[in-house]
Amino acid sequence: MEEIIRRLEKLVKEREWEKYHTPKNLAMSIAIEAAELMEHFQWNEEDFPDVRKNVEKRREVEEELADVMIYCLLFFYYLGSDVKVAIMDKIQQNEKKYPYLGKKQNIYKKEGNSNMS
Amino acid sequence: MEEIIRRLEKLVKEREWEKYHTPKNLAMSIAIEAAELMEHFQWNEEDFPDVRKNVEKRREVEEELADVMIYCLLFFYYLGSDVKVAIMDKIQQNEKKYPYLGKKQNIYKKEGNSNMS
Amino acid sequence: MEEIIRRLEKLVKEREWEKYHTPKNLAMSIAIEAAELMEHFQWNEEDFPDVRKNVEKRREVEEELADVMIYCLLFFYYLGSDVKVAIMDKIQQNEKKYPYLGKKQNIYKKEGNSNMS
Amino acid sequence: MEEIIRRLEKLVKEREWEKYHTPKNLAMSIAIEAAELMEHFQWNEEDFPDVRKNVEKRREVEEELADVMIYCLLFFYYLGSDVKVAIMDKIQQNEKKYPYLGKKQNIYKKEGNSNMS
Repeated sequence: MEEIIRRLEKLVKEREWEKYHTPKNLAMSIAIEAAELMEHFQWNEEDFPDVRKNVEKRREVEEELADVMIYCLLFFYYLGSDVKVAIMDKIQQNEKKYPYLGKKQNIYKKEGNSNMS
Repeated sequence: MEEIIRRLEKLVKEREWEKYHTPKNLAMSIAIEAAELMEHFQWNEEDFPDVRKNVEKRREVEEELADVMIYCLLFFYYLGSDVKVAIMDKIQQNEKKYPYLGKKQNIYKKEGNSNMS
Repeated sequence: MEEIIRRLEKLVKEREWEKYHTPKNLAMSIAIEAAELMEHFQWNEEDFPDVRKNVEKRREVEEELADVMIYCLLFFYYLGSDVKVAIMDKIQQNEKKYPYLGKKQNIYKKEGNSNMS
Repeated sequence: MEEIIRRLEKLVKEREWEKYHTPKNLAMSIAIEAAELMEHFQWNEEDFPDVRKNVEKRREVEEELADVMIYCLLFFYYLGSDVKVAIMDKIQQNEKKYPYLGKKQNIYKKEGNSNMS
């Protein structure tokens, strides 16, 4: 992760892109890249095995995901916040919000909800 | 990164959420979380120093970003693809697309474009 | 339509909201409201008859759609452009892009594409 | 409005696109078109007079807005709901939520909030 961030920092600094990277603009960028990812699944019901088999589509999807993540990593960089800590905290929140009650009593089967936010 | 992915895998498997995690649904989730991030900057022109100073806002923003990244990491997990390789590839593409010509000849200043996708 | 636009204009002018209504901010608002609409369908496969039967959900969905359309109408208002002309032009473009060849030769069945943009 | 909806209905029925038009897919389409609109304002701070002067950009922006509105109108069509009633209801809600107190006591100036949703 650290290596990725250092390389991103170099890319941005050399090209003097910091001035465009306001919180508003980066948030828009994340949303725009997320929409480009959605486009790949707008009119079909493909599942993950379908996408894995389709070499070209899989590569395109990986690129859209990488775009989203790059802008997220830049956002964390400008915030001066630790990505890993933030993600682990959020996972922990979800573990508590939806406690695992063992296989028998697992209530999540019926709920139709897997919203982690 | 590996540690995060293992913990996400456990969270999802225990709660039997895989069946909701189609490519379409996960792409929507990323876009929805990205929009929640945008909401924090919709009617203001805050810059990063402003957000860093605002402890509560900074924490909320970190959580939205973590949500986006968690769904991206899950997407990579289901694709069976390597996150780090995908991000490094995309950074390299950008380094080539916008080559750094040295401080003097840096043309990016004038272009008003820092679109990395 | 004219009546709606006049009432929106009055709402905005009285509250002196014009200064917040930059193209960037209104575009963000449209995207944020669109994401709120998506949330209603993120983890389910409901069809339109399902939604029509669910009085409360139908009303919520109508409200999200109204939010999206209000921001679009405001955008047209600030552009000084005619909404109806723009929509009719776009429909005509789609009629030409996907010409109707009669019931027998209708190729759209197989294409899995109904992207009107 | 009625004329637009009849023409959209004809377009969709002839091409047998109804089967792709689930609530989920149409909500995604609205969000995708909204993101395409945002792209035009991602890295600049143009105001409405700027966009009005730029003939080509203005036309592109009108087309993106028309795309968003067409999918919203189709959504209303499938819901069997009245677009105008829904929009007027939402405007009324906003008039009440942010009551106009006259020019002198107008509190909205200071609030930095014009969120109509």
